[in-house]
Amino acid sequence: VDIGIDFSESVSERGVTERRFDLTAGETLVPGILWTPEDATGPRPLILLGHGGSQHKRIPNVLGMARSFVRHRGWAAMAIDAPGHGERRVPGEEPLLARAERTPEAVREMGQRFKRAVGEWKLALDAAQQLDDVGPGAVGYWGVSMGTLIGLPFVASEPRIRCAVLGLAGLRENSGKRFTQSAHDLRVPVLFVYQRDDELGTIEQGLALFDALGSPDKTMHVNPGKHVEMPLFEREAAETFFARHLLAEAARAS
Amino acid sequence: VDIGIDFSESVSERGVTERRFDLTAGETLVPGILWTPEDATGPRPLILLGHGGSQHKRIPNVLGMARSFVRHRGWAAMAIDAPGHGERRVPGEEPLLARAERTPEAVREMGQRFKRAVGEWKLALDAAQQLDDVGPGAVGYWGVSMGTLIGLPFVASEPRIRCAVLGLAGLRENSGKRFTQSAHDLRVPVLFVYQRDDELGTIEQGLALFDALGSPDKTMHVNPGKHVEMPLFEREAAETFFARHLLAEAARAS
Repeated sequence: VDIGIDFSESVSERGVTERRFDLTAGETLVPGILWTPEDATGPRPLILLGHGGSQHKRIPNVLGMARSFVRHRGWAAMAIDAPGHGERRVPGEEPLLARAERTPEAVREMGQRFKRAVGEWKLALDAAQQLDDVGPGAVGYWGVSMGTLIGLPFVASEPRIRCAVLGLAGLRENSGKRFTQSAHDLRVPVLFVYQRDDELGTIEQGLALFDALGSPDKTMHVNPGKHVEMPLFEREAAETFFARHLLAEAARAS
Repeated sequence: VDIGIDFSESVSERGVTERRFDLTAGETLVPGILWTPEDATGPRPLILLGHGGSQHKRIPNVLGMARSFVRHRGWAAMAIDAPGHGERRVPGEEPLLARAERTPEAVREMGQRFKRAVGEWKLALDAAQQLDDVGPGAVGYWGVSMGTLIGLPFVASEPRIRCAVLGLAGLRENSGKRFTQSAHDLRVPVLFVYQRDDELGTIEQGLALFDALGSPDKTMHVNPGKHVEMPLFEREAAETFFARHLLAEAARAS
């Protein structure tokens, strides 16, 4: 397939350059955003941000983290719309996540979508690493909820990712084999975040996924509240986690 | 009772002044250590460090945190020997914690000791706040395992303490009423740390105590490993937690 990336707009604000891009791979068009320090040159750590179900690449928590990483640390950050999300949403169509609660066909379709999303992340990462101000630096992944359903198999199968923040997802009876196997296969350091009163999963399911992660270096943060009520200070904890692992990585490389 | 404090030695090393003291209250003598920035004057946040069972006031993790808090943040830190620990240990006597596993009398005696320890912490805090380089600033408490068994009732009953790091302890059938009530009464922000493979308690007991804490602002960190295998980065997390709450406190006060 033909693969291309087209940077359509670039806006800089308070030291952060935001570039919207379209990644084309054959028939597929994946819209994304890359955030870098204004006037940056040379390689730097890159954080990939995977949004949650029904969200998109520029949802406030993704945008907030991207800007923090660029401003506080001088890293790059990137987000893409997952299949069926953001600019890829088909108007009037019922979200697949909602349909998947009713029919096995929709569950299978979602599994295919998540698999496709992993391939798209790899292509987007290829493209970003070609850029002079990103380069082949250390890469981290952040994604919770659907960002973990897609991100865990992605991180487990992509050696360029050196650490990940995952969470708001658990192991349950209907967890797919591919997802469960990815958990066992994972070796990179993980910060796993979970909400004590998550209405979409029990703490036992969250602990089961944390336990299943094959990573020797893993840590879990639990906060009171529902699925979307994670406290803001977990962004700071994610940043500290990425700094600990990606800077150590960068030091070993040089 | 007569209460006095006697600072017997003072040593400064790499910017940290360490003062050993003896607190006397009637018949009781409590040895302790205060760490402050060298040449400090004026009030500053103070962190009280409660060591674990069989440990003492200058065990490496306590000493390491005290020095970090002073060097990184310019705070003061203080530790005291718990009853029967450190310089207060009766040579040749079997530790009470070990005896408490066998006899109800020893369990009762331990309850009395923990209650006494709370009173000693209050006296030590009174004394520290008289000092020009500590003063009436914001106070935080750190203590896990026995440091939580003593510290939770202490923090719940001491309005000068504005936030606490607790953990490595759970709610169980034989948890005393005073301890359980203290958990419910607690209102200050808490960072609760726990080890996934703690041989002294289950994750369910740890979660039960976390759930019971009355604090609206609470967060839990779980790490793989046994009771004494908490990763070093939790010291950094504790420091970040104290900074978030004590500096906000200081800003409100001024």
